[in-house]
Amino acid sequence: MMQKISITLAVVAIICLSSCKQAQNTNEDSLTSRQTETLFPKGNKIISNNFTGTAWLHMMIANDSTLYARMGNVTFEPKSRTNWHSHPGGQILLVTNGVGYYQAKGKPAQLLHKGDFVEIPPNTEHWHGAAPDNEFAHIAISLNTDEGGVIWLQPVTDEEYNNIKK
Amino acid sequence: MMQKISITLAVVAIICLSSCKQAQNTNEDSLTSRQTETLFPKGNKIISNNFTGTAWLHMMIANDSTLYARMGNVTFEPKSRTNWHSHPGGQILLVTNGVGYYQAKGKPAQLLHKGDFVEIPPNTEHWHGAAPDNEFAHIAISLNTDEGGVIWLQPVTDEEYNNIKK
Repeated sequence: MMQKISITLAVVAIICLSSCKQAQNTNEDSLTSRQTETLFPKGNKIISNNFTGTAWLHMMIANDSTLYARMGNVTFEPKSRTNWHSHPGGQILLVTNGVGYYQAKGKPAQLLHKGDFVEIPPNTEHWHGAAPDNEFAHIAISLNTDEGGVIWLQPVTDEEYNNIKK
Repeated sequence: MMQKISITLAVVAIICLSSCKQAQNTNEDSLTSRQTETLFPKGNKIISNNFTGTAWLHMMIANDSTLYARMGNVTFEPKSRTNWHSHPGGQILLVTNGVGYYQAKGKPAQLLHKGDFVEIPPNTEHWHGAAPDNEFAHIAISLNTDEGGVIWLQPVTDEEYNNIKK
């Protein structure tokens, strides 16, 4: 009798633990999939002196001569960022994932999350990039490209980056 | 002794079942949150004769006089769509959710999914909207708006809509 009960106890425990494990796994899978889900592909690693750290570009619209626009998805690893730069025709950023910053020269940095967007007026010196502990992805749409291409300037120093007021 | 084992068995079963239930609930919550998750808000119902069916607009950038651009998130309920129309300065659509169509006059309709985008050249007669059984959301970025605003035309008839080749 005692042996039967012990076996039953063991079987019940195994079934319960196994089914719990399965439910947790499904949950972990869906969370992982949600966390890594991005609207657009990551593309190729950017090899450029105009960035600090590692960033990726998926080019979507190369300079279009009827729309006068250029569009790409940029993914920044934590801490990575563009140099200071400006766009003669302006730019829109649409944040698709993660946490990052946009800063116009002489103004406080803006903290950005998925779903935020930024209007960057023509000829405004600025940078954008990831927060220290988060990846960051945005669609960048350069406008009125008949006015000219991006004008790259100096890197955002570690001092500038680390002094962002949180 | 028998009583102790029975109580232990009951306690183990209750703990296991309760923890399974909790894991499953978390999983269901995360799935629901993922399925209904959209990048931008739905906004307000569009009251206009330029649409068939129910659509929603979240205006993000009203016509900007330095960027010459306008940006909004449009959500279409199943079967709903714009009238035929054109943009003197062109437009970009970025699909953020669901399934829908883009069709330029005289060309086959294009089936669109989350993550797709469309370049609409200036002065191209076209429409966009949801698939019959799916909601559809896209960011619409009107470009070069100094060239003029949208030119609205006739509705997409049920015959035109139902004759889309799948």
